Amino acid sequence: MVKQILLKEYVSYGAPTTNNFTFSDFELDESKLEENQILVSLVLVSVDPYLRGRMSLAKSYAESYKLNEPMISFSVAKVLKSNNAKFAVGDYVVDGFPWQEKSIVTPSPFANKVDPKIPLETYLSALGLTGLTAYHGLNEIGKPKEGETLVVSAGSGATGSIVGQIGKIKGSRVVGIAGSDEKVKFMVEELGFDAGVNYKSPNYKEELAAACPKGVDVYFENVGGDVSEAVWPLLNFKSRTVVCGVISQYNRTTPDIGPRTIELYILKTSSLMQGFIVSNYFSNNPAAIKDLSQWFAEGKLKDKHTINSGFDQIVPSFLSLFEGTNTGKMIVRVSNN
Amino acid sequence: MVKQILLKEYVSYGAPTTNNFTFSDFELDESKLEENQILVSLVLVSVDPYLRGRMSLAKSYAESYKLNEPMISFSVAKVLKSNNAKFAVGDYVVDGFPWQEKSIVTPSPFANKVDPKIPLETYLSALGLTGLTAYHGLNEIGKPKEGETLVVSAGSGATGSIVGQIGKIKGSRVVGIAGSDEKVKFMVEELGFDAGVNYKSPNYKEELAAACPKGVDVYFENVGGDVSEAVWPLLNFKSRTVVCGVISQYNRTTPDIGPRTIELYILKTSSLMQGFIVSNYFSNNPAAIKDLSQWFAEGKLKDKHTINSGFDQIVPSFLSLFEGTNTGKMIVRVSNN
Repeated sequence: MVKQILLKEYVSYGAPTTNNFTFSDFELDESKLEENQILVSLVLVSVDPYLRGRMSLAKSYAESYKLNEPMISFSVAKVLKSNNAKFAVGDYVVDGFPWQEKSIVTPSPFANKVDPKIPLETYLSALGLTGLTAYHGLNEIGKPKEGETLVVSAGSGATGSIVGQIGKIKGSRVVGIAGSDEKVKFMVEELGFDAGVNYKSPNYKEELAAACPKGVDVYFENVGGDVSEAVWPLLNFKSRTVVCGVISQYNRTTPDIGPRTIELYILKTSSLMQGFIVSNYFSNNPAAIKDLSQWFAEGKLKDKHTINSGFDQIVPSFLSLFEGTNTGKMIVRVSNN
Repeated sequence: MVKQILLKEYVSYGAPTTNNFTFSDFELDESKLEENQILVSLVLVSVDPYLRGRMSLAKSYAESYKLNEPMISFSVAKVLKSNNAKFAVGDYVVDGFPWQEKSIVTPSPFANKVDPKIPLETYLSALGLTGLTAYHGLNEIGKPKEGETLVVSAGSGATGSIVGQIGKIKGSRVVGIAGSDEKVKFMVEELGFDAGVNYKSPNYKEELAAACPKGVDVYFENVGGDVSEAVWPLLNFKSRTVVCGVISQYNRTTPDIGPRTIELYILKTSSLMQGFIVSNYFSNNPAAIKDLSQWFAEGKLKDKHTINSGFDQIVPSFLSLFEGTNTGKMIVRVSNN
């Protein structure tokens, strides 16, 4: 029997819980592969905040999941049988895969074979969607320049940790915002950020201003709400805010009520704010992968993971993202090969 | 004696009042013109919401006024004496002029001689800074396309009325937001907008949604706060919000508290929001003036004014802008020639 995790119900408001999923198992007939199909076993699963949006029917960039069908996320799987010329038995493939121990699937046009010289988990972080998200967001919208100040919220998280490191490669002063002193230490000492600020500090606003003595030229937004309200007064003329995520807003049962100052600061500084989804820029993936791979090989881009083990850890790991417990990319190891 | 209006004190918070100004008069020695100077009498004065920002010391795009010096705004003045080869006695000149019945000034590099075939007030509206603001904001940021939906807040105001008409020229569906049924009627019947919505209606949100059955592709922002909160859920994929003004925010004594949803909608729709000040795009003024003049001559662009008469009406007219009493461009006529 093959374990699987299905979406039981849509969640319009509030935090998702274990009850929103159906945990079941089913008999998989491994003998029938249609043309181009492959039989795979799940090895590593990426859990990401944006999956929250797909669990609701609200209009958004990513398609809603279907009820009573398996959840899907970016994962690494191993090919057990193949009816597809591109993938051979034994290959590791990165693609969107169902949350099932084993699946028969037709790989998407974006499915990639893994280079055995690179750690598997890197395909879900620095060289995966996370790395591409950081790269394209900075490259297409943020455009940090040498000597400019780049601030990134959730700077110790999956995307933020890559964003800050790319900022350093570009020669910017990088300031990370995170939710604990430990994460601040991680950003500065392990990732090489110039400064870090704990948004739970009673003097958060003053500390952020002190960390950005020349103001803020690029703000890479992963959080929103009060965390970002402290950034707006620091924006410089013609600053760029890259809206990659607003994790503080996803699980709200009522709207986030607070000061609404962003438009005033955007006006005063002729600034730009732009949202994006990484797939908008997939046509530039070859250049992105080239740069990211080179930086990774040169040791300029480190990737950090929080890895939990076991198929049963997928949902708890996903839910924990909203508690801010992870440092770096959250990944679940389903099997060891 | 020559009447003048000086700034008495900076106003950090709250609405400006008559008490913030000094009304005085002084003896002007009209005999001494240095090289390039002209002696002018003030004819028409433009009063604009953005002057509010110049009355405070807060960091913004426009320079703060100096205390105990005359207020300055875009105006039309008549040349009485000239020591400047570009301007002759009897010429009407558009430039930033002090709020004085008469002044001796060196014209700025942007000073323009008026074409006698065009009404003077048009140089402060359709063919003035207001027209340029509407034109550059739409052209550089909003980029409305044929068949798209353009929403403009304060659509019956100075800038909004021009924005909506340019939107129609570009082939967009134009929806104006304003604060009375009379203004809604004005936008639809006199300016040719496709629809208008009164934000004071108890069903404002529903009425706005109904007026935009295909969502919103371009939002030209002049107001902010609750008025705009109703627009965000209607934004389409890759929409563009042009932040030209947020008049609801300028006079606040405490921050505007309300739902903070804009980032979430910008994220969900890969949308762009950008602030600007018209001078960012002055290098494109020749093309703008050419288009605006042609549309004006062809009758495609009408300009509407609220004109008050008398030097003593300058301050009351400025203060009334924040009450929303004007339709079209607010202008003060100081003298008849």
